[in-house]
Amino acid sequence: MSTTAPAGGTTTAAAVLARCAELDAFTATPGRLERTHLTPEHAAANALVATWMQEAGLRTWQDAAGNLCGRVEGREPGLPALVLGSHLDTVPDAGSFDGMLGVVMAVAVVERLAERCATLPFALELVAFSDEEGTRFGTALLGSKAYSGQWDPDWWDLRDRDGVTLHRAYLDFGLDPRRNGEAARQPEELVGYLEAHIEQGPYLEEADVSLGYVTTVAGARRFRLSVHGEARHAGGTPYERRRDAVVGAGVVVTTIERMARERDVIATVGRIEAHPGAVNVIAGRVDLSLDLRAPLDATRDGAWDEILAVLDAACTERGLRLEVQETHRAAAAPCAGWLQQAVVDGIRSTGDADPTALWSRAGHDAMALATVTDVGMLFVRCFDGISHHPGEDVREVDVAAGVDAFEQAVLAAARAYEAGATDAPAPAAGLGR
Amino acid sequence: MSTTAPAGGTTTAAAVLARCAELDAFTATPGRLERTHLTPEHAAANALVATWMQEAGLRTWQDAAGNLCGRVEGREPGLPALVLGSHLDTVPDAGSFDGMLGVVMAVAVVERLAERCATLPFALELVAFSDEEGTRFGTALLGSKAYSGQWDPDWWDLRDRDGVTLHRAYLDFGLDPRRNGEAARQPEELVGYLEAHIEQGPYLEEADVSLGYVTTVAGARRFRLSVHGEARHAGGTPYERRRDAVVGAGVVVTTIERMARERDVIATVGRIEAHPGAVNVIAGRVDLSLDLRAPLDATRDGAWDEILAVLDAACTERGLRLEVQETHRAAAAPCAGWLQQAVVDGIRSTGDADPTALWSRAGHDAMALATVTDVGMLFVRCFDGISHHPGEDVREVDVAAGVDAFEQAVLAAARAYEAGATDAPAPAAGLGR
Repeated sequence: MSTTAPAGGTTTAAAVLARCAELDAFTATPGRLERTHLTPEHAAANALVATWMQEAGLRTWQDAAGNLCGRVEGREPGLPALVLGSHLDTVPDAGSFDGMLGVVMAVAVVERLAERCATLPFALELVAFSDEEGTRFGTALLGSKAYSGQWDPDWWDLRDRDGVTLHRAYLDFGLDPRRNGEAARQPEELVGYLEAHIEQGPYLEEADVSLGYVTTVAGARRFRLSVHGEARHAGGTPYERRRDAVVGAGVVVTTIERMARERDVIATVGRIEAHPGAVNVIAGRVDLSLDLRAPLDATRDGAWDEILAVLDAACTERGLRLEVQETHRAAAAPCAGWLQQAVVDGIRSTGDADPTALWSRAGHDAMALATVTDVGMLFVRCFDGISHHPGEDVREVDVAAGVDAFEQAVLAAARAYEAGATDAPAPAAGLGR
Repeated sequence: MSTTAPAGGTTTAAAVLARCAELDAFTATPGRLERTHLTPEHAAANALVATWMQEAGLRTWQDAAGNLCGRVEGREPGLPALVLGSHLDTVPDAGSFDGMLGVVMAVAVVERLAERCATLPFALELVAFSDEEGTRFGTALLGSKAYSGQWDPDWWDLRDRDGVTLHRAYLDFGLDPRRNGEAARQPEELVGYLEAHIEQGPYLEEADVSLGYVTTVAGARRFRLSVHGEARHAGGTPYERRRDAVVGAGVVVTTIERMARERDVIATVGRIEAHPGAVNVIAGRVDLSLDLRAPLDATRDGAWDEILAVLDAACTERGLRLEVQETHRAAAAPCAGWLQQAVVDGIRSTGDADPTALWSRAGHDAMALATVTDVGMLFVRCFDGISHHPGEDVREVDVAAGVDAFEQAVLAAARAYEAGATDAPAPAAGLGR
């Protein structure tokens, strides 16, 4: 199978999947995919995808934040751009599709449009974001936030697990931190942003359809929780004298799950670690991460206030103290009505007369982009809803439908843009599944 | 305050405490006491204590397992020895007394006995064990097990957190692993083993007494538990599809505490860690340590069988799998009746007419020694039962009583040994508090 798709309308789903597989080679640890922000493997992935973009007829550059960009002009030079993209970074021990599929599908769309690009009422730009997951520095969307002009100077002091600051990582990657602001795009340069992504959930599989359109991207809040107790000898300390942070953390974790379920909020504790962490010492402190999501910010925030009050009381009752530090807060990002409609039109062109609406539980680069331009998203069915895991998988038939729909969505967006219909309402009233 | 106590009957409690403080200097991290097996700080502590032993009139040597030893002959050369000792290694972020107090008190006893040593019906030996806590290699009592002739060749492959094997650590410390067996003492060389130690529990403080005698040292069982689930995307995976190892671990931790309390078993989960441990990934695996203790092995083992059945069912119900690996198992070590009586006699000499019996929840080097000789233990009250923590503390008045009682216990043991009364029954029928 050739991994270089021929230009001009014939890029196959098989070629898209082969390119995703080819990107697996760029990893920190052979046999286990981990490609994080500003690493040598990130540079190598950018370099390979740049060649694909160039073969598709795009002019390419790496921006001041390590995002790989490409552009092909529309019917005249210098028009505002419709941006298609996703990200090339991964979580630890990742699958091959989260982010990468959207980048490679965007390249395929430009390949298939080929000379039709020059008839469009906007330029087409591609972007492969440098950091969406936040694996290396703990703060997500560093690439797309720079691209959308949101930057907190405190981020320069973020450190990876080896103590390397983001500032140092920029320099090591050959980027100049002082020029980071040049990555920021202005609203007037942009028509909108369309992103294809695997669903990372089970709903399209349950509905037995290949594709879905996204109504809103739920905003996550993330916290660092610390349960403070007292480190004491594991053997000598009777129960009535214990202030055991591990037992407290157990109560915290099970309480969060029970209360979040009852309130339709998705809560995940992904990290938990005891200190000092010795087999014969009662833990004096346990650190946990918490990630909270709901389709509406008000639902999420109301539930968290209620959960926090119960956690506080449960810790106090055990002589423990709960410390809470918010590390991330993102507002939900609604998709623009006209871009939802363009994606719906794209999906309909594949034979699905009644496209499925979904709200995205997962965060996406589209959240950052929504602060500077209209956004829309196309979801592709994935196997068993598995993501952030090597078992992540997609079917070739769904990718084929996805590339067709993505291409048609771009053309539908062009028609709407040309008709001045970018204030069209969303195709459905609700948020979907 | 001089830290070098004068020989001949005048060693003060203040001098004992000053020596404990002096040992704090030998640590891996300044300002935070951590001194583990076969490290440069271990060597430095051995060297300083050797000078104290020599000043007390002992001949000293470091044995083939890194234990520091000293000997003074009794009424004739070559008699079997009553061994007094404890350990010089610590947990991370330790207090100044767990182990060290017993070593320094033993030196003080020999200093105070001075020329009376040469009238005893046995030699007196001192030993400062190299590893009791197991902090560096995860397996406890490496020093006292070598000393008592129990050695598992698999231990050579134990690794510290930097990947250094025990075998390599021996070589780096200047020890020859092939000669490790030479550290083993034979039963016929030994009369018994007496150890003074802080209580590491609150019972003497509650009873408002300085000292207690130990009836038995509870044996711990230690396990590595792994809760296996499935790593998935934190946002995209609905609750009914989750197999969240962190939530499972929360149930495991809280169930262990509830059931162990009901069964009078002391259970501690000191380590807990999620994998992959990312804020936006449902954990696929959580590793936990478990330490279980009870005064009787049968109580402990019966309770564990019941707890394990409930944990297994709770994990299965959540689509999780519990993996259990036993990493340590020690039988309870009853103290010999005649040495319990000697310690009782020693405590009575300080004015406490009705000495308090205790069973030790904590493990001690005496457990290893009990496999080759009779053992007895003297407990010293400590502040608020705190141990394995920088807040560990003892009162000077209790140390003063402890040195007096320890000296008198040695003399009482000499009388009993001379009278051939080493099969005397224990002073109390029960296990004590």
